Amino acid sequence: MADKTIKIGLVGFGTVGSGVAKILLEDCDYIKAKTGLKLELVKIVDVDTKKERPVKLPAGVLTNDLNSIVNDKDIQIAIELVGGTKIAKDIQLKMLAAGKDVITANKALLAEHGNELYTAAHKADKCIAFEASCAGGIPIISAIRTGLAANKIKAIYGIVNGTCNYILTNMTSKNESFRTALKQAQDKGYAEADPTLDISGGDSAHKLAILSSISFGCEIHPEDIFVEGIENIDIADIRYGHEMGYTLKLLAIGQKTAEGKISLRVHPSFIASENALARVDGPFNAISIFGHAVGHTMFYGRGAGMMPTASAIVADIIEVAMGNSKKLFKHLTLEPRNKDSIAKVDDLMSRFYIRLRVLDKPGTFAQITSILAKHEISLSGVLQHEEQNSNNVVPVIIITHQTQQKKISAALADFEKLEMVKNKPVCIRIVDIPQDGD
Amino acid sequence: MADKTIKIGLVGFGTVGSGVAKILLEDCDYIKAKTGLKLELVKIVDVDTKKERPVKLPAGVLTNDLNSIVNDKDIQIAIELVGGTKIAKDIQLKMLAAGKDVITANKALLAEHGNELYTAAHKADKCIAFEASCAGGIPIISAIRTGLAANKIKAIYGIVNGTCNYILTNMTSKNESFRTALKQAQDKGYAEADPTLDISGGDSAHKLAILSSISFGCEIHPEDIFVEGIENIDIADIRYGHEMGYTLKLLAIGQKTAEGKISLRVHPSFIASENALARVDGPFNAISIFGHAVGHTMFYGRGAGMMPTASAIVADIIEVAMGNSKKLFKHLTLEPRNKDSIAKVDDLMSRFYIRLRVLDKPGTFAQITSILAKHEISLSGVLQHEEQNSNNVVPVIIITHQTQQKKISAALADFEKLEMVKNKPVCIRIVDIPQDGD
Repeated sequence: MADKTIKIGLVGFGTVGSGVAKILLEDCDYIKAKTGLKLELVKIVDVDTKKERPVKLPAGVLTNDLNSIVNDKDIQIAIELVGGTKIAKDIQLKMLAAGKDVITANKALLAEHGNELYTAAHKADKCIAFEASCAGGIPIISAIRTGLAANKIKAIYGIVNGTCNYILTNMTSKNESFRTALKQAQDKGYAEADPTLDISGGDSAHKLAILSSISFGCEIHPEDIFVEGIENIDIADIRYGHEMGYTLKLLAIGQKTAEGKISLRVHPSFIASENALARVDGPFNAISIFGHAVGHTMFYGRGAGMMPTASAIVADIIEVAMGNSKKLFKHLTLEPRNKDSIAKVDDLMSRFYIRLRVLDKPGTFAQITSILAKHEISLSGVLQHEEQNSNNVVPVIIITHQTQQKKISAALADFEKLEMVKNKPVCIRIVDIPQDGD
Repeated sequence: MADKTIKIGLVGFGTVGSGVAKILLEDCDYIKAKTGLKLELVKIVDVDTKKERPVKLPAGVLTNDLNSIVNDKDIQIAIELVGGTKIAKDIQLKMLAAGKDVITANKALLAEHGNELYTAAHKADKCIAFEASCAGGIPIISAIRTGLAANKIKAIYGIVNGTCNYILTNMTSKNESFRTALKQAQDKGYAEADPTLDISGGDSAHKLAILSSISFGCEIHPEDIFVEGIENIDIADIRYGHEMGYTLKLLAIGQKTAEGKISLRVHPSFIASENALARVDGPFNAISIFGHAVGHTMFYGRGAGMMPTASAIVADIIEVAMGNSKKLFKHLTLEPRNKDSIAKVDDLMSRFYIRLRVLDKPGTFAQITSILAKHEISLSGVLQHEEQNSNNVVPVIIITHQTQQKKISAALADFEKLEMVKNKPVCIRIVDIPQDGD
């Protein structure tokens, strides 16, 4: 059987683009031996054709003319690594219309316009492959779509933003403040100069929208997801949680509720310190998936970076070139978006960690507990350290039993009204990841 | 596009076979919606057609006549779940010859005769899919063959036998003896009545042969693998190791050496207690894979059991039915077995844990250290607890720096000759799993 040459065009020659070019140029023989495919990187398009990059290209490959890919009938696969949602969308649509399969790492675009793009691809009889859009080098899209295809997915719990995990890990293990840990993440290249999208939880929500749409088979938009970021996390709460056996992680959670709805949320979460996800440190990502047949599985690896993300892009190239992606993609039909199928965050059942700073005087505890009683919230633990300070204000930590979000919100509002409560109460959800016990 | 009906025959109606039947009967609508495939379980062949099973079959499906599958031209996929290496091999060859794709969970057969079967499948222009042969429900074969296809695999470290991991976990956490933990594993159904294949490391070696052959692209037989089981593990060593920061696991290791050879081994291994694999408990499996682009990835889940293994078999059914497995399988060509490419265990570089029971008298330590010096072994740690016993014999624990296996073997032989050494020395390898640091 003659080996097949596959011509590839790449749009966006940044960090990940350089990694893809590196693999395609350096490892093409190895890939050919493994797959029978001769992968040929024909064109790279970028507005900046002058910048020094960590990979040497053959002459004539780099250009700033997008049409050099669009109009080249021999280019079968177009990789979009531009980022953003406007130009990138136009590029993808143009490539599909020009008869090319599209590969992308663009989580924001797929989260916001995925179904529109998938429909365009179906019409053009082409496919969009997006392994690199979630969790970098971890083959999580392929795991959900093929390896776990026999399963009804019950829940996903993911650490899918390496920036946040790096910051929280350093706050936890080095006792650093949020600002210091963020600065270090920026120095290390794990956080952007403007880190908003990461630390706000927005990036995690984009990934959760993609992962949960393919897991649950329905269209999910970022605005269907309840999102809280890590910007206001105080190291004191990480320490108090730790004393009580919890580790703080920014989790992206998608789960089917008992009522058959889908609960979707990204927020700082206290999880049991012995849970496997609690031990996912630094810039690493991990995703726990619960399937009805397979039980608990977990996938761990680097969620970003030049070579790990390029690893996922090249895996997609191989699958697209073999024709396998297209067959799978044909059946990527998502039920239309339906707000009624999304659980309301007010109805969320959870345990909660609450920290109040209160005046240390008689009657304080009675007032706190009567507010909890009024809202039918039952206490499962209290922590109050003896503390010496001039203003007689002490922290009180409360752990609740399972209760509804709206009851907690009402109690927090009542706490704020109390004269003896000196700061806005801190409230962090405790997430009990199911045990798939023996 | 009309949905495709795929007719399936299953040989072997035991635990896993029942799980497969359950998914195919109960979840066929769900799978059809996801994949467009109508999976129809047409025949199940088993010698025992009377036994009660946890799944109700339509009339006429169960038979003891293998030819009801072989001769049915409409059956495209045959699943072999018979186990063993003789009859199972005949069945697979017969199915391939009859023009059927084969799906199997039979690790022993593939480890011993994989290449012969793959060649037969290539000749028949059919494929063999074997996701369920390693690590049960974890989609590890698919991860190596597709998700990580862009990578040159540098090393695999796997906990791939749930029986051994269950036993070692209970020895570690419940302070149980090997015998007690084995008994409990048998009571729980995690160990066979004759547990030899599991506890000897043989089953792990079968899985390692499969995983490393597809990772490194060459034919590997179980006899190429150095194997030590857990039968002789003394709980005292688990405790001493724990004190020094190590957790004992039965690891299956395949790695490229600096000299370009492949080191293959299954043995009890002390790993750093903070390593992710150290926290894989009970019957769970996990496999760490290091790729040149992706860095460190880890895959975790249930390594056995009715539904997790059935999850992997049904994933294979879907991929085979779509035609994707066949395309990939075409390029499953393994370099012929070459003993020279396999690293000799004598040349293995490792750190070692050694426990001696010695007479507590002047000069003992001098004799031990002079033997180590003679073999150029350098000490990195020593542990000797004060101990009261009537015979004046005390345990001495030695941790070595990196050294060669053959030097340790020679030193152990010398120790045994010493009059003041009262038992056969215990020696356990310390495995330093690379850190993919930030």
